[in-house]
Amino acid sequence: MQTLNRLSINQGTIRSWNIIELLDACVGEQIPFVSLWRDKIAEIGIHETVHHLRESGIRVSSVCRGGFFPATRAAQQRESYEENCRAVDEAAAVGAEVLVLVCGGIVGRDIDRSRAMVSEGIAHLLPYAEEAGVKLGIEPLHPMFAADRSVIVSLSEANGIVETLKSENLGVVIDVYHVWWDPTVRSEIARASGHIFGFHVNDWIVPVPDILNGRGIMGDGFIQIEHLRELVTKAGYIGPIEVEIFNEELWRMPGSKLLQLIKERFLASV
Amino acid sequence: MQTLNRLSINQGTIRSWNIIELLDACVGEQIPFVSLWRDKIAEIGIHETVHHLRESGIRVSSVCRGGFFPATRAAQQRESYEENCRAVDEAAAVGAEVLVLVCGGIVGRDIDRSRAMVSEGIAHLLPYAEEAGVKLGIEPLHPMFAADRSVIVSLSEANGIVETLKSENLGVVIDVYHVWWDPTVRSEIARASGHIFGFHVNDWIVPVPDILNGRGIMGDGFIQIEHLRELVTKAGYIGPIEVEIFNEELWRMPGSKLLQLIKERFLASV
Repeated sequence: MQTLNRLSINQGTIRSWNIIELLDACVGEQIPFVSLWRDKIAEIGIHETVHHLRESGIRVSSVCRGGFFPATRAAQQRESYEENCRAVDEAAAVGAEVLVLVCGGIVGRDIDRSRAMVSEGIAHLLPYAEEAGVKLGIEPLHPMFAADRSVIVSLSEANGIVETLKSENLGVVIDVYHVWWDPTVRSEIARASGHIFGFHVNDWIVPVPDILNGRGIMGDGFIQIEHLRELVTKAGYIGPIEVEIFNEELWRMPGSKLLQLIKERFLASV
Repeated sequence: MQTLNRLSINQGTIRSWNIIELLDACVGEQIPFVSLWRDKIAEIGIHETVHHLRESGIRVSSVCRGGFFPATRAAQQRESYEENCRAVDEAAAVGAEVLVLVCGGIVGRDIDRSRAMVSEGIAHLLPYAEEAGVKLGIEPLHPMFAADRSVIVSLSEANGIVETLKSENLGVVIDVYHVWWDPTVRSEIARASGHIFGFHVNDWIVPVPDILNGRGIMGDGFIQIEHLRELVTKAGYIGPIEVEIFNEELWRMPGSKLLQLIKERFLASV
């Protein structure tokens, strides 16, 4: 029986709201967690963000996002590192459970080299995150984002990086949209046991309305969400469950109406 | 050094032409192979198709397509079987090197059961294909087609089915668009050695203009086509290489101009 105890609203789902509006609504609806995007934090500033979080009592399941490690030139690599350090600082300031890493796409038309750059970039960032007490969560993306967003497209690769770099502060974030199709998803979730730092829900609808912003709400599509949630729970993850949906049609709904729909579907289909 | 000796034009690439127009153009350009779609065969009939093929001297690399095995009701399963038998007959009649299998999407919201139905469906069809002397080629599709077109989304799964069912008439068709992102693609191509029945080329362009009809022409995107071609060659495949591109923009070009472009890009980027 699902309750709202673990529900987190990813800010990308109700994009029309700023952080203050989101927190007010979650207080009203007794939703315990939010996930914050860095551009939304920038809108009101980190001090205001921290202040409103404290007042609301709402906790932060994750900050979106760090990553984008592959870079062809040293200057770009340095910039990426510095940007990621700022993301770590923000995650620490808001007390986020995890900083989500979207690892970045292909540079120099070389997917193998780009994959290696991701591992190197995470290894480089890790000591800074450890120092700050921030957990980094590698989120494998769907293979359709391999070229431009994340060369890490399977839980298997993400698990591999975590096992190689071995740190209490490094784990994976599992989003059903990105991994549901994978015939190895069952064994890879089990393999991730002990380093699952986040779990995201939404649905795969057909026809896909848009490659980036065409996710569906839970229950409308083909993903066996409850089954995946059980596997993740069996692997020991009991933290917040984020609803993360990018969908032009849902974005046009009034925020409060969308929030009601999310609550209903979370209770019925997660 | 690439030549045109292995070039095959998949009819879906130059959709405006019927079979007769396609064959005439290939004769004129000394292109040795075509891949035929069943709806185009139906347009002029199988006898006309065979007649024009013989006159032209052009060979058929593949017939598109059989498959779509998952079905919830027995009547649907029977229909699917009968339709697949007709596809086998057509592949035999035109002397195709392979009948491509697009395995079908999810039924009953159960991806595991749907995957099992694919294996069962292929096992059921195989004796008929063996009798007819037709090779069946399982084409794993990109994971973004898992829900509605093929629950078989990795070369690993396709290889697994081939190894289980063990027949000279069962193998895989490797399309770079569907497998390029896979971190295990190298080892899976090696594993497919001896049962690779086809190789398709095109490119992954960004942004993807359309989920179904948004493929790019070779050289315009992110796929390391030459590298994959080398791997497939090393695995022993020396048959035709099909250019299969579904792209609204290319379809608007005059066929003969598009054919020139394909030839150029095939020589430069495959």
